[in-house]
Amino acid sequence: MEQGRFITIEGGEGAGKTTQIEALCRYLESQHLSVLRTREPGGSEGAEEIRRLIVEGASGRWDAETEALLVLAARRDHLRSLVWPALSNDSWVVCDRFSDSTYAYQGYGHGLSLKELDQLHAFTLGDFQPDLTLLIDLPVEDGLRRARARKGHEIRFESMDTAFHERVRQGFLERAQQNPARITILDGAQPAELVTRTMLRAVSDMFGLSVQE
Amino acid sequence: MEQGRFITIEGGEGAGKTTQIEALCRYLESQHLSVLRTREPGGSEGAEEIRRLIVEGASGRWDAETEALLVLAARRDHLRSLVWPALSNDSWVVCDRFSDSTYAYQGYGHGLSLKELDQLHAFTLGDFQPDLTLLIDLPVEDGLRRARARKGHEIRFESMDTAFHERVRQGFLERAQQNPARITILDGAQPAELVTRTMLRAVSDMFGLSVQE
Repeated sequence: MEQGRFITIEGGEGAGKTTQIEALCRYLESQHLSVLRTREPGGSEGAEEIRRLIVEGASGRWDAETEALLVLAARRDHLRSLVWPALSNDSWVVCDRFSDSTYAYQGYGHGLSLKELDQLHAFTLGDFQPDLTLLIDLPVEDGLRRARARKGHEIRFESMDTAFHERVRQGFLERAQQNPARITILDGAQPAELVTRTMLRAVSDMFGLSVQE
Repeated sequence: MEQGRFITIEGGEGAGKTTQIEALCRYLESQHLSVLRTREPGGSEGAEEIRRLIVEGASGRWDAETEALLVLAARRDHLRSLVWPALSNDSWVVCDRFSDSTYAYQGYGHGLSLKELDQLHAFTLGDFQPDLTLLIDLPVEDGLRRARARKGHEIRFESMDTAFHERVRQGFLERAQQNPARITILDGAQPAELVTRTMLRAVSDMFGLSVQE
C-alpha cells in the first residue's frame, strides 16, 4: 500500500498561511491525490477539546510548561486518531501548524528549554516528522498589521508584545537553518500569487509531481 | 516565613486512601497546622477541567502517552496555582495521588518508558518532590473487591484486568524500594485503625510532631 505525505505550514501571525494552504490543497487534488486538510492544536475530536482548554479563558491562565504539555497531548491524539491512519491510507495530509510552532512559541517565545522540548517530542512522536515544512516568513510588524485587520480572529497571541513575536520569528528561522532538507522558507512579503508559485515548485520538486496545476 | 510540607497518599484501588487521608488531616489539624487537602488529577480549577477530559468519555479514548501528557499538564497547573502557593504560605498539603501513581499506572501498568516519565516529570516539576509519601499496599483482589463494593465510584481503572493491577502494585512497591527515605509502605490489609496508627507514627517521626492526636 502507498503511504501519503505529511506537509506542515508554519509561520507567525498574518503570514498568509490559510491562503497558501488552500492553494496547496487545490494543487495536490489536481494531481489526483487524496488530501486531508487539518490544523493544530486540534484536528481530531479529542484534540479539539484540548484546544478549547488552551485557547479559551484568560490569557496567562496556563503557564508555558502547562500549555506545552496540553499542546503535545493534543498533537498525540491528532496523530493517532487522524493523521497516521490517513497517511497509512494513502492520503496526503496538509497541517496548519505543527511541532515547529511549539518550538517557536513555547521555546523561543516563552523561553522553555529546547532540549526539554526535544524530549517531549520524542515521547509524543517517536521519530515521526513532516516530509516537508513550508515556513512563511514575514516581518513581525507586517504580520501583526494583517492579523489585526482580520475579523473574528483569535487574538490571543497577537496581544503579546512585539519582542515576543520577534523571538518567535527568529525561532522559526533557526529551525529552518537546522533542518534545511525538511523546511523551505517562503517570503511572505511577496504577493500571494508569487508565494504560491514558489511553494508549488518546492512541493513538486520534493515529491516529483508535475508543476502544472 | 515557614514552609509547609507536602504529603502524598498512594495506592491501588480500594486500598483505603480516603479513610487514611481523613485521619491524617484530622491529626495535622490537632497539631495546630494549617492543612490543605487535595487530589490528582485535579485539585485546581484548570486541573479539574483537564481531569474531566481524562476520566469522561470512553475508556481507551486516549492512549497511554496522551493520558500521561494530560495528567502532567493537570499536575503542573495544580502545583502552580494551588500547591506551591499553599506551601509557601505555611500550609501543609495532603494530596490523594501524585507522581508515583503516574509511574505505577502509565509506566508499569501501560508500559510507558520510565526514563521518559522521568524526563516528563523533570520538565513539569523541576526537582520538586513530596516530603513524604504514604503508600497503602494491598493484594489486588482485596482492593478490587472493596472498590466494587463502593457506590458511585469512578470505575474506569477497575474495569481493567487483574494483571494490569498486579503490574501497578509491583510498580508502587518498586518506587518505594527506590525511594526508601521518601516513601513509607503501610499494610492496607490491616484494620483501618491499625493502619492509621502506623501512619501517624511515621508522620510524627518524619516531622518531629507529637504522637498524641
